[in-house]
Amino acid sequence: MKKLCTIFSTWMLLFSLLARGLAEDVRHEIHFPNLPDYKTLKCDFHMHTVFSDGQVWPTVRVAEAWRQGLDAIVLTDHVEYQPHKEDLSTNLQRPWELAADEAKKKKLLFPRGVEITKDTPPGHYNAIFLKDANQLKTKDFVEQVKRANEQGAFVFWNHHTWKGADKGRWQDVQTLLYDNKWLHGMEVANGSEYYPEAHKWCLEKNLTMLGNTDIHEPDLRRTTTAGDHRTLTLVFVKEPTLDGLKEALKQRRTAVWHKDRLIGSKEWLAPLFDASVIVERPHLYANKTLWLKIHNRSDVDIRLKKSGGRGPTEIFLAADGTSLVQIADVPSAEPMDLTYTAVNFLIAPKTGLPVTLHIEKP
Amino acid sequence: MKKLCTIFSTWMLLFSLLARGLAEDVRHEIHFPNLPDYKTLKCDFHMHTVFSDGQVWPTVRVAEAWRQGLDAIVLTDHVEYQPHKEDLSTNLQRPWELAADEAKKKKLLFPRGVEITKDTPPGHYNAIFLKDANQLKTKDFVEQVKRANEQGAFVFWNHHTWKGADKGRWQDVQTLLYDNKWLHGMEVANGSEYYPEAHKWCLEKNLTMLGNTDIHEPDLRRTTTAGDHRTLTLVFVKEPTLDGLKEALKQRRTAVWHKDRLIGSKEWLAPLFDASVIVERPHLYANKTLWLKIHNRSDVDIRLKKSGGRGPTEIFLAADGTSLVQIADVPSAEPMDLTYTAVNFLIAPKTGLPVTLHIEKP
Amino acid sequence: MKKLCTIFSTWMLLFSLLARGLAEDVRHEIHFPNLPDYKTLKCDFHMHTVFSDGQVWPTVRVAEAWRQGLDAIVLTDHVEYQPHKEDLSTNLQRPWELAADEAKKKKLLFPRGVEITKDTPPGHYNAIFLKDANQLKTKDFVEQVKRANEQGAFVFWNHHTWKGADKGRWQDVQTLLYDNKWLHGMEVANGSEYYPEAHKWCLEKNLTMLGNTDIHEPDLRRTTTAGDHRTLTLVFVKEPTLDGLKEALKQRRTAVWHKDRLIGSKEWLAPLFDASVIVERPHLYANKTLWLKIHNRSDVDIRLKKSGGRGPTEIFLAADGTSLVQIADVPSAEPMDLTYTAVNFLIAPKTGLPVTLHIEKP
Amino acid sequence: MKKLCTIFSTWMLLFSLLARGLAEDVRHEIHFPNLPDYKTLKCDFHMHTVFSDGQVWPTVRVAEAWRQGLDAIVLTDHVEYQPHKEDLSTNLQRPWELAADEAKKKKLLFPRGVEITKDTPPGHYNAIFLKDANQLKTKDFVEQVKRANEQGAFVFWNHHTWKGADKGRWQDVQTLLYDNKWLHGMEVANGSEYYPEAHKWCLEKNLTMLGNTDIHEPDLRRTTTAGDHRTLTLVFVKEPTLDGLKEALKQRRTAVWHKDRLIGSKEWLAPLFDASVIVERPHLYANKTLWLKIHNRSDVDIRLKKSGGRGPTEIFLAADGTSLVQIADVPSAEPMDLTYTAVNFLIAPKTGLPVTLHIEKP
Repeated sequence: MKKLCTIFSTWMLLFSLLARGLAEDVRHEIHFPNLPDYKTLKCDFHMHTVFSDGQVWPTVRVAEAWRQGLDAIVLTDHVEYQPHKEDLSTNLQRPWELAADEAKKKKLLFPRGVEITKDTPPGHYNAIFLKDANQLKTKDFVEQVKRANEQGAFVFWNHHTWKGADKGRWQDVQTLLYDNKWLHGMEVANGSEYYPEAHKWCLEKNLTMLGNTDIHEPDLRRTTTAGDHRTLTLVFVKEPTLDGLKEALKQRRTAVWHKDRLIGSKEWLAPLFDASVIVERPHLYANKTLWLKIHNRSDVDIRLKKSGGRGPTEIFLAADGTSLVQIADVPSAEPMDLTYTAVNFLIAPKTGLPVTLHIEKP
Repeated sequence: MKKLCTIFSTWMLLFSLLARGLAEDVRHEIHFPNLPDYKTLKCDFHMHTVFSDGQVWPTVRVAEAWRQGLDAIVLTDHVEYQPHKEDLSTNLQRPWELAADEAKKKKLLFPRGVEITKDTPPGHYNAIFLKDANQLKTKDFVEQVKRANEQGAFVFWNHHTWKGADKGRWQDVQTLLYDNKWLHGMEVANGSEYYPEAHKWCLEKNLTMLGNTDIHEPDLRRTTTAGDHRTLTLVFVKEPTLDGLKEALKQRRTAVWHKDRLIGSKEWLAPLFDASVIVERPHLYANKTLWLKIHNRSDVDIRLKKSGGRGPTEIFLAADGTSLVQIADVPSAEPMDLTYTAVNFLIAPKTGLPVTLHIEKP
Repeated sequence: MKKLCTIFSTWMLLFSLLARGLAEDVRHEIHFPNLPDYKTLKCDFHMHTVFSDGQVWPTVRVAEAWRQGLDAIVLTDHVEYQPHKEDLSTNLQRPWELAADEAKKKKLLFPRGVEITKDTPPGHYNAIFLKDANQLKTKDFVEQVKRANEQGAFVFWNHHTWKGADKGRWQDVQTLLYDNKWLHGMEVANGSEYYPEAHKWCLEKNLTMLGNTDIHEPDLRRTTTAGDHRTLTLVFVKEPTLDGLKEALKQRRTAVWHKDRLIGSKEWLAPLFDASVIVERPHLYANKTLWLKIHNRSDVDIRLKKSGGRGPTEIFLAADGTSLVQIADVPSAEPMDLTYTAVNFLIAPKTGLPVTLHIEKP
Repeated sequence: MKKLCTIFSTWMLLFSLLARGLAEDVRHEIHFPNLPDYKTLKCDFHMHTVFSDGQVWPTVRVAEAWRQGLDAIVLTDHVEYQPHKEDLSTNLQRPWELAADEAKKKKLLFPRGVEITKDTPPGHYNAIFLKDANQLKTKDFVEQVKRANEQGAFVFWNHHTWKGADKGRWQDVQTLLYDNKWLHGMEVANGSEYYPEAHKWCLEKNLTMLGNTDIHEPDLRRTTTAGDHRTLTLVFVKEPTLDGLKEALKQRRTAVWHKDRLIGSKEWLAPLFDASVIVERPHLYANKTLWLKIHNRSDVDIRLKKSGGRGPTEIFLAADGTSLVQIADVPSAEPMDLTYTAVNFLIAPKTGLPVTLHIEKP
């Protein structure tokens, strides 16, 4: 039968097309489980089109979101920076209008938004859930934010370390917005950047944490994987509607997926971890050693370090994978709790999430 | 922010390692849902090691099965063909003995087996769930099969078109085994080959259908995908134990995953389809057109052709993907049933599975 | 040393990023060798931007061409179809103007072009190497083609089977253009389509054969491979300049890479084959059998079928790969010629290129 | 034409099989250019089979080497450690004998070898180019090395930091071998490990540097890429024969490819760099800025840092890729030399190779 077998390995590759055949039309869901009381939406609230300095027509952003498994996106073209204006309309409603039908057909939540774009200070701010974006065409920054709030918008400070001598500093203008409850969140991650100070401020000041792409070019990713994904915001909603999304954002029920880690607060990373990690009952107890499987139902690789007691020093739970874990020096087959830190679930800068793995009796 | 963005696309690739990092140690489950009353096991009952004409030590087969997401495998080295015997033991129990511990640690079901290897007729037969493989070391073929059955084995005819003038024919010797209830199944697929006649005979004679790799070389696949997977047998068990596996095989509760299709009987492909395909309630009804999502929770791409009434002519449901389906000419927003054929769910040679997609009221 | 080794396979994946790190900025050349007297340029003469019904800003096309290894592209937005005109300039020079600097920095040949877009007949025509595209803004089709020719343009008929009752037929209007020498070529391939009739006509009427993408969406390919590449035109130039490119096109020195095959004339496919395939001197002669390596220096998989005499029935030469070839029944170690057909080098519809493989004395 | 285009992207993936179709039979060469006077061979001198503690039959190593593009391999099963001896022959000549025919057919250089396997000190040593491996079956270590040398072997010290209290130290026994000229080289890399001290000693003591896999399991790589490759030794030979290989090893003409870097001496990394990197004449000079392409003809990504003068701070030359380089502040269009360090061409521990990029007049 050897001949058959060498042919075998050949044809297997012959229909790999079918798996990926309609890659650009097929949607592949992003895997993060729902929480006990909330549905987990995968969202990107910051991106550009040809209507400011982006390189794609608005509908391209909808197609990208569909195939990559996003649930909500916002086009946030610059109010103040429109380098294509010699050739293109400057109507701030147009990007949304041109893509809204496609978004509806694809069941994407698609609030209206813009990026208010000032030199630092105050810097750049996204206002989303707008009704009439063109009303923000005024020079006065505080007036812009005020008008956005009057429309019921959710407003957040983008990439706060951008740009100039004052970059990265919290100044009077932010205090003014904050005291008026006109500022609701901050980007703790933008594209490749993570902002530990923003992370800290969000925890201290009760601001919502956001992670977005700020993408300008076409996104070449066909799908989403642990190793090649958008920076995005997980939002834990009661209902997957525009209102449900806004309510969750205002109540700060978010976590940010950035590179190989999740960024957020203990309040939301803990239940996300618990929903993602499934510890099986040990299937073997021999020579005072337990053998068991642990499943990771999320698209993020999870890295655990032991913080005390029994168990291996490190456990690696690959995205959507199953790990075989061996616990040595177990005197008798009883249930036990292992204490670990999920080092890439950041509940504060440089601080991993403490977790407990409950091991049943084999 | 453009600069950030070009850097962005760079780092994304930087940690792709983590997704795949421990690729050879991580297990990735194969996605076929359980049925309402049965657990779906992914199995390969035919493979070789250095102890006959294979190229790997027995433990390699266990490692392959683990990382590729299999639940049960059997090493089936040839009784009669041992080209390495000048250098290697010919004890037929050894392959199993050398890998059994690894299989137990990895929670694989790992029955003992051999391949009885005669010229055609009668051809090659696997006997699995053996107690003492060495008892089959006798020249008389019928005696071998009898002894295997006395040990409680499950016996099936391999790649029946192999080899010589009489290949592919059902002859007296098969009738003898069959009448004695010593022959329980046939390979309907082996590696790259599908045998329509075996498919037909299994349906007519109530034999169990099996699909296996018959692999001799190392398997280079790191994981399992729709486009690059083992030929394997899905077994629908009441309990994921050795006894549960044998009971299910004897009761013919199997389906075969071969290339881009499933092969089996209507009895088992129908519930597998129903468990795999999730039709969402339509999210949009406009211009007499419905828009809805259909999810495919299995690792096989599913190809549907309309057999009558409303709906698109063809629907492609990518493995583990979501398709957007548009139904035109819908006069009013009422529930409806669409009738299709799942053309790559073969319930008989050249015969797809008829299916109904129930569409709820939007 | 086993422990080291299992870790080993892990880290190997850890820096796979570096290979692909700057994937969007790095150019990967397409591998087709130069011919003895000509340089081989890889070209796409048909694509769209937001300035007609495309989805990307003109600079995106330059970025795609750079990273995928193209040498020349032309933006060919529709003269008559501008669905974004409510928002966007209709100046036919703008797409070129907006991307010309980027093209120059990246050393791409970047002639000006448009697509003349009429109902069938006459259908759609690209005019490239224009000086002033806006001069083609007139309703009369023949006048448009005449003006293009007065500017020195190269004019070709696109996807001739598109669309309506008269599609695919050569009619009086084509004869008029042809007799005036205003029509220089035809697309024999457009995206996924191959037009055997166009192939035949080009051979009969001495028209230049072209293969293009006609792409409207962003191109997600990061690079070019045998299995996932643009439909493109190879142009055999004396000099890699705009003039050299036009001279070669007018002299019909082209071949088309479409899916898994090359399309063209024997005149140009024969030297391309000879430059691509390197037959090594046999390294082993034993048991009246020769063993030798054959290298394929191109990005297309080459499939050979024996047309007589010695050698294996089929030889597969994978793109950029080396095949081991075994020639049996060789009575003595003398040089010999093997006669094959390169079945996927189409010198006419359904007609492969006859080739000779010269085998040296071992 | 939009419809065509969405279909287009689909079929492209349909024949990706062809590129990879016979992946396990096709050889893909590893790209490192020859040097002006030497041919560059890609070699792995350390690997195991079932005949010691490896997991594969000897022929598997030949198949791996063929498809991954290696030119020479040596099977080096342990003399003193044969855990399969209960089932398998302990004849040290057998691994070579069983695979030699396959190696010859595939034109691989295939010297005989073993690994002398002692506790530390002295540790593990490979003896390659043996005539009769079984003559090394004696307990006395120095006697073993002496006998190997009497057979004309090339002997090197493996992974010198392995294992025990004395690991990693140069002791009397090494001095004894060295003074007798019985020790010719050291592994500076083994699998995932790099040994800076071995690197330093090789430079000081004129020992040959080697990098090997020490692989025990099947190698799952289908081919070789910058991001996923074997640790291997480049050997610069006058002739690609067994004698040529041994002469080059004894003359220390090697470099080691380990992870994302090359390890060696300036003497051989400098010409390898020069042969790999092709600087094109600048194609654009505008605004006192030069634009030019740099090609990297090797399979290693090359990272350059400016060590003075003009040019970008860093230049990244992706494996087999082309980079676009921009040189600012160039007052006039004259030739110039840029001085850089190739930081991942290690000519000593933590020391990159100094290089000059000569820029022609545009």
